[in-house]
Amino acid sequence: MSVSGGGRLPAALDAAMTALNASVHIDSALWREDIAGSIAHARGLARIGVLSDEEAQQIVAGLQQIAGEIERGEFHWDVDKEDVHMNIESRLTALVPAGAKLHTGRSRNDQIATDLRLWARRRAAELEQALLELAGVLLRRAEEHLDLLMPAYTHLQRAQPSRVSHHLMAWQELLWRDLGRLRDAARRLNESPLGAGAVAGSGFALDRAGVASELGFERPMRNSLDATASRDFLMELGSALAILAVHLSRIGEELVIWSTEEFGFVRLSDRFTTSSSMMPQKKNPDVAELVRGRAARVIGDAVSLLVLEKSLSFGYGRDLQEDKPPIFAAAESVLVCVRALSGAIDSMTFNAARLRAALGAGHMCATDVADQLVKLGVPFRNAHHTVGALVRRAEELGVQIDQLPRSEVRAIHPELTEELIDSMFSVEAAVERRQGIGGPARVRVQEAIADARVRWGLSE
Amino acid sequence: MSVSGGGRLPAALDAAMTALNASVHIDSALWREDIAGSIAHARGLARIGVLSDEEAQQIVAGLQQIAGEIERGEFHWDVDKEDVHMNIESRLTALVPAGAKLHTGRSRNDQIATDLRLWARRRAAELEQALLELAGVLLRRAEEHLDLLMPAYTHLQRAQPSRVSHHLMAWQELLWRDLGRLRDAARRLNESPLGAGAVAGSGFALDRAGVASELGFERPMRNSLDATASRDFLMELGSALAILAVHLSRIGEELVIWSTEEFGFVRLSDRFTTSSSMMPQKKNPDVAELVRGRAARVIGDAVSLLVLEKSLSFGYGRDLQEDKPPIFAAAESVLVCVRALSGAIDSMTFNAARLRAALGAGHMCATDVADQLVKLGVPFRNAHHTVGALVRRAEELGVQIDQLPRSEVRAIHPELTEELIDSMFSVEAAVERRQGIGGPARVRVQEAIADARVRWGLSE
Amino acid sequence: MSVSGGGRLPAALDAAMTALNASVHIDSALWREDIAGSIAHARGLARIGVLSDEEAQQIVAGLQQIAGEIERGEFHWDVDKEDVHMNIESRLTALVPAGAKLHTGRSRNDQIATDLRLWARRRAAELEQALLELAGVLLRRAEEHLDLLMPAYTHLQRAQPSRVSHHLMAWQELLWRDLGRLRDAARRLNESPLGAGAVAGSGFALDRAGVASELGFERPMRNSLDATASRDFLMELGSALAILAVHLSRIGEELVIWSTEEFGFVRLSDRFTTSSSMMPQKKNPDVAELVRGRAARVIGDAVSLLVLEKSLSFGYGRDLQEDKPPIFAAAESVLVCVRALSGAIDSMTFNAARLRAALGAGHMCATDVADQLVKLGVPFRNAHHTVGALVRRAEELGVQIDQLPRSEVRAIHPELTEELIDSMFSVEAAVERRQGIGGPARVRVQEAIADARVRWGLSE
Amino acid sequence: MSVSGGGRLPAALDAAMTALNASVHIDSALWREDIAGSIAHARGLARIGVLSDEEAQQIVAGLQQIAGEIERGEFHWDVDKEDVHMNIESRLTALVPAGAKLHTGRSRNDQIATDLRLWARRRAAELEQALLELAGVLLRRAEEHLDLLMPAYTHLQRAQPSRVSHHLMAWQELLWRDLGRLRDAARRLNESPLGAGAVAGSGFALDRAGVASELGFERPMRNSLDATASRDFLMELGSALAILAVHLSRIGEELVIWSTEEFGFVRLSDRFTTSSSMMPQKKNPDVAELVRGRAARVIGDAVSLLVLEKSLSFGYGRDLQEDKPPIFAAAESVLVCVRALSGAIDSMTFNAARLRAALGAGHMCATDVADQLVKLGVPFRNAHHTVGALVRRAEELGVQIDQLPRSEVRAIHPELTEELIDSMFSVEAAVERRQGIGGPARVRVQEAIADARVRWGLSE
Repeated sequence: MSVSGGGRLPAALDAAMTALNASVHIDSALWREDIAGSIAHARGLARIGVLSDEEAQQIVAGLQQIAGEIERGEFHWDVDKEDVHMNIESRLTALVPAGAKLHTGRSRNDQIATDLRLWARRRAAELEQALLELAGVLLRRAEEHLDLLMPAYTHLQRAQPSRVSHHLMAWQELLWRDLGRLRDAARRLNESPLGAGAVAGSGFALDRAGVASELGFERPMRNSLDATASRDFLMELGSALAILAVHLSRIGEELVIWSTEEFGFVRLSDRFTTSSSMMPQKKNPDVAELVRGRAARVIGDAVSLLVLEKSLSFGYGRDLQEDKPPIFAAAESVLVCVRALSGAIDSMTFNAARLRAALGAGHMCATDVADQLVKLGVPFRNAHHTVGALVRRAEELGVQIDQLPRSEVRAIHPELTEELIDSMFSVEAAVERRQGIGGPARVRVQEAIADARVRWGLSE
Repeated sequence: MSVSGGGRLPAALDAAMTALNASVHIDSALWREDIAGSIAHARGLARIGVLSDEEAQQIVAGLQQIAGEIERGEFHWDVDKEDVHMNIESRLTALVPAGAKLHTGRSRNDQIATDLRLWARRRAAELEQALLELAGVLLRRAEEHLDLLMPAYTHLQRAQPSRVSHHLMAWQELLWRDLGRLRDAARRLNESPLGAGAVAGSGFALDRAGVASELGFERPMRNSLDATASRDFLMELGSALAILAVHLSRIGEELVIWSTEEFGFVRLSDRFTTSSSMMPQKKNPDVAELVRGRAARVIGDAVSLLVLEKSLSFGYGRDLQEDKPPIFAAAESVLVCVRALSGAIDSMTFNAARLRAALGAGHMCATDVADQLVKLGVPFRNAHHTVGALVRRAEELGVQIDQLPRSEVRAIHPELTEELIDSMFSVEAAVERRQGIGGPARVRVQEAIADARVRWGLSE
Repeated sequence: MSVSGGGRLPAALDAAMTALNASVHIDSALWREDIAGSIAHARGLARIGVLSDEEAQQIVAGLQQIAGEIERGEFHWDVDKEDVHMNIESRLTALVPAGAKLHTGRSRNDQIATDLRLWARRRAAELEQALLELAGVLLRRAEEHLDLLMPAYTHLQRAQPSRVSHHLMAWQELLWRDLGRLRDAARRLNESPLGAGAVAGSGFALDRAGVASELGFERPMRNSLDATASRDFLMELGSALAILAVHLSRIGEELVIWSTEEFGFVRLSDRFTTSSSMMPQKKNPDVAELVRGRAARVIGDAVSLLVLEKSLSFGYGRDLQEDKPPIFAAAESVLVCVRALSGAIDSMTFNAARLRAALGAGHMCATDVADQLVKLGVPFRNAHHTVGALVRRAEELGVQIDQLPRSEVRAIHPELTEELIDSMFSVEAAVERRQGIGGPARVRVQEAIADARVRWGLSE
Repeated sequence: MSVSGGGRLPAALDAAMTALNASVHIDSALWREDIAGSIAHARGLARIGVLSDEEAQQIVAGLQQIAGEIERGEFHWDVDKEDVHMNIESRLTALVPAGAKLHTGRSRNDQIATDLRLWARRRAAELEQALLELAGVLLRRAEEHLDLLMPAYTHLQRAQPSRVSHHLMAWQELLWRDLGRLRDAARRLNESPLGAGAVAGSGFALDRAGVASELGFERPMRNSLDATASRDFLMELGSALAILAVHLSRIGEELVIWSTEEFGFVRLSDRFTTSSSMMPQKKNPDVAELVRGRAARVIGDAVSLLVLEKSLSFGYGRDLQEDKPPIFAAAESVLVCVRALSGAIDSMTFNAARLRAALGAGHMCATDVADQLVKLGVPFRNAHHTVGALVRRAEELGVQIDQLPRSEVRAIHPELTEELIDSMFSVEAAVERRQGIGGPARVRVQEAIADARVRWGLSE
């Protein structure tokens, strides 16, 4: 006995299901990968005798023709055929009768997993290339500005003297690790699901290893259930993209702050700013703000991917259709942000006068005074307190500590000579004293740039 | 002195900035609202004499003509004109010279804030309508199945006897609160930013109240900086959508489970399932899975909106361009999911035999036995332990507790008559005993349906 | 036939399960609510004769004694008793034998739902009070600084002249809507789950309405399944807290920027800053940074709550144990941030000289010049271009536009008198011209403050 | 001129700042790492002559004494001393006067970065160990159940015949990649920030390389600004934990479903289930639900870490204090979940009868029939349609396809012999036919287990 609901379905509800179900407007972005996977599968089927050599050749030719049609914009994508796979297979079968045999030993479940892995590998490579360009820009600008000093900030308060190139090299370090994450993700995902079938493998003696090899995969995936139902490669890529986007957003935040009239450290090129519809004098750092904004979206995309898989039982569930919009959007957002930032940083102008002026305030030498006292034998905590007293005294007098009456300074410690005082009050000397590995001394930054050139594989 | 970066910008970087900057492919979705806002603004400018009546009429006519062009698909959207505002204004100025005066006293900052609020109000109303449809389906199906019993589960374990209609009414309760959240959000955002200018209001004596009223807003926003720089209305709407999507996902999860061969409680209509490319026997509950999948994306969208605004200084920053993709996507996802679920629930079939069978196992009467003992004076915790012993005994014998030898049951308590035992072992009696407010007794569910009809404004 | 895994469980795995299972270290925070709910339930049981009046009185007295023990820190929380409910019930039964009857007609499922709703209502009220204090601080400081001008920014670029009080009132507007969201959430959740039992109500004729009323709930929840399995009230509260935290973070961002040496607009009190362990001169805006940091955590907490419920089937699942840590943390974070910001804003000092200096640059009058031209009949877009030319000319000369040779300015338009030029170049006049609703003119801000005092219920 | 706010700060606001500021209740968890870092720093200072050998020895001895005090619970943590660093240094200075020199050339900024990296490395190693245990359990159970067949599901619908061990090995594959992510993260973060100072390095000639080596780091970090201001190692670890938690949650979901009366595939041991306070017959799969619930929290924690860093300018900001609660919670949650699941899976019982029964329905052989037709020369798409017709016919007759009249089956294709039909209708044969790499055939699963033992380094 069963109790039916009757057929009172209004048209809008049917339309909603159609809208929910259709994916071709999204997954058609995978056409290159879908065709590459099908070609490899066809050749594999020929090797095990399911297709004759002639059939395989016809199928391959048909698929190549379809690729051409899509590239030239001549292909008719049909939403009624639901997804990229059915659109291409349907066209193929119209072109080549043997196309009806192509799906032998394959399921859409291993097919889409293959497409997505090929896609992810390609996008990771493009991102890697874009990161190389950005690193190249940073290294070049660091070299150009090797002698330009600036304050290092903590808590957005002036802290200690440093140099512009050291700051740019810090950005580069973050990106270097981002590159590592991308490469790790791309390496880990480079396995072939083809041959895993819908969930439990195939009854045909498919040449999984050969197909994997032809597609540039390192190996076939080791478990058919895992191969079709897992998307951790997308979660991992999404997370790597989110971390990278956070880094770009941090750079963006700095560009916004540095572009203010109050800081005035940099001036972005007109190509990366816009004016205002109401205030013609404005020169807004849009590139930097848009990068920050995109980062928010990439974080949301990464969250979508994590949430999507949470609590999914095995194997493949249709929920996984929804993995494509967030990962596609995240990859595109990050790629465009890396490139736009490359252009913005490449073309921006540093204002040496404002950078210099910023060094002359904020008691930038306080740490160096404390260090000097320590070198004269004062325990660090005591030296720290002494400098605190100097700063308070300077603020009473409305000056920076390096403008305090020398008599007051000399009174701190009997061994404090004029020469020592001059040295500890010089920002140039202060930066040069920071000679340790990873410090802002000129020679250290030069070495860091050279080392980075080698690591990134960027010739000068 | 300033240090320039030189003009070495490769074309790809320029293209990236263009891609990042352009928004017309996204914000053209706001054309209705943009035109409505411009018409109200034009009339307001006429009321204060900035435009002549004739100019205002020409502008209004021009804008109406543009609306027609867009609706008919004849409008040429030009990405070089960056956004929806400039596309429409540019066309307007071509049609009507006075169009060049339209932006007087207005900025894109208050303009886009107005567009977004009008858009959000419209989408909330559409969602409200869709929720009403879904509630209507639930109420009707609850009425149809008033007498169909089923187990209530906790921890996905059979717990106590209940009825299908009671379960459907629980879904309805969640949606009722979702409706409340949507209405609260729509009410709170219904204020007009127009006249707030770029950030600090306008030097013109704009008729903000009149314009607000014409656009159906409750009042002009009270602070120009807030009006242009705040997007909490999108965060709130996004969060309400995410909560609603979570609820839809919970329903989807139940439909997936109920559709398994193992449960077999419902059969979805063919229009809401798909088969497999490899396994022709499959009837997959795609609608339910896609709803779960979309919910993951909506959560990500809500996150994007929260993250986007976090740490934004005032006033307007270009980061806010990125608020549109997530909120547009979230609203569309939820709308399509509500409608598709309406169709799926409307057309699904309950399997009464499987529901009945499920009630006959799982020791569904255990609570009622404990309750009966309490009514005979046994303290609750002791009664609970006694029933635990019965269950263990039944499991030793490989039966349900209602199949235990009556002698063993009667031995529990001297006042336990055959009649009491029959009553406590009857699932029908058990459901009917649950007569409290909100309980599954038939009369209570009938009342609940009637009450819900009134609240939702749904006639029978 | 069944295939067992054998008893090879190492101790660490058992310990892990114990750690996962235990909740008393978290949910003991609900003891007030748990006892209040139990007292109301006991009285309700007495009204329907399940408890004698004497038993009920003993139970109530026992529970009150336990409340005293907990408040005085004398209560022994026992992790082996798993949760707050069993700890209290176990102690009650030791004190009062009738305690063993208290759980009649109740389940931990409706009990914990009741506790959580009472808790959420109490925390929302505390937050409401804290928001009132913060609003009071903002209104008072706005009144104090009614005459202090400052630039309004867009894109963190100086845009138009405004006033400090107008800016503080913008912050207040955001918080006003936050208050609304909290109140809506608190109202919507104020329903009683008690009597819903484990999932399908109770076989006892419980006085649900009376118990609800005694606990200050508006009504009993309408569906037993919904009552025990839904946590949208936590998702909604969590989202409202996240939005509020985002707003606090935006204020924090501004305080960080305003505290820089470069902006120098405010100086936070020493109680809300810290110095550095290495740099004694530093005065870091820690309060503002910590508020930004906490906001990130609150967003994460809100996400946890959304994800937790997504895909949960009905009724109660143990997953829901994990709803407490995120909502407890979010409420505490937001409360402490609201209060700390109140203190920081209350005690911070504005630097009038720096604010004034900032107004003198950035071509702040550009909009007013354009507006003036429009008033003389120039179409807005043309006026905008003219001002653009003036700005470029001023930048060539290295001056602000108000320092351009008057002859060049007068040449723009024949009707431009000296008086008009003076007026359009005066920031004071510019602010006062912004007389529209929500504008920064002195009288408008005064009205806005008065209006806000009424809305918040804050006397002067 | 400056305008002060006056000293009207209520006590509650001061208390809030104290609560916001304090971190010792959180970061005291880093005491081991803080002491290890200080010992290495002291020895490094001795090597460059800032400390005498005797001073360094005294400091090391003092620190070791403090470690003992903390381990024995004798250490007095003082919230007024703010954080773990100051608590330990303050005690050290009380024990050893030379302790006042220890902070020379160091800042809390590089100190906390070092502590966190050491902590992350330790926790990653613990997690790796726990994953190994879980993998060991899975491999052992897979071996035990090598001959136990079960359906493979897609869309939670029975799809194709498979075996229990193949399913467990799929779980193992996911965890294997999780291990890879943890190892990559642990390797990438294994660099020493010590010597980076507050932001711009140190004026002392610190032996950064020696200190790094002593602490087991691979190298000193290459840029002082990056070393103190970056937390991508926490974002990466948090993301890896979230992905792992998602995987555990997927396993949890399956255990919940398999434990239902309807599926009945497994029975969890009593140590990993609980009963109900109202329903004594219940045996709830709490471990699995709690794992799902924790995963939701871990996702929220990962989000907190991403959001926290987004838009932070360089260098160190106090926001970063808030990185500890989410990463600490995430690591602990995942560790306890991995261990609890190990115990649950180790001790759970498979119900072979129910598994067998599930194989006998759902037209499990449909794919094999299609495959057989293909082998007889029918193109795949046609074969697929033929099987669809068989399934419809079987459903008309109310049977499984393997129970269709043989005459109807034989009619499909002239070469279909009885033997071929028997083979294509046998689930055992069907599983064994899936001989491809990664398939469920017995020999393939045996190989997969052997291969996994080698990869994980787990002897039999």
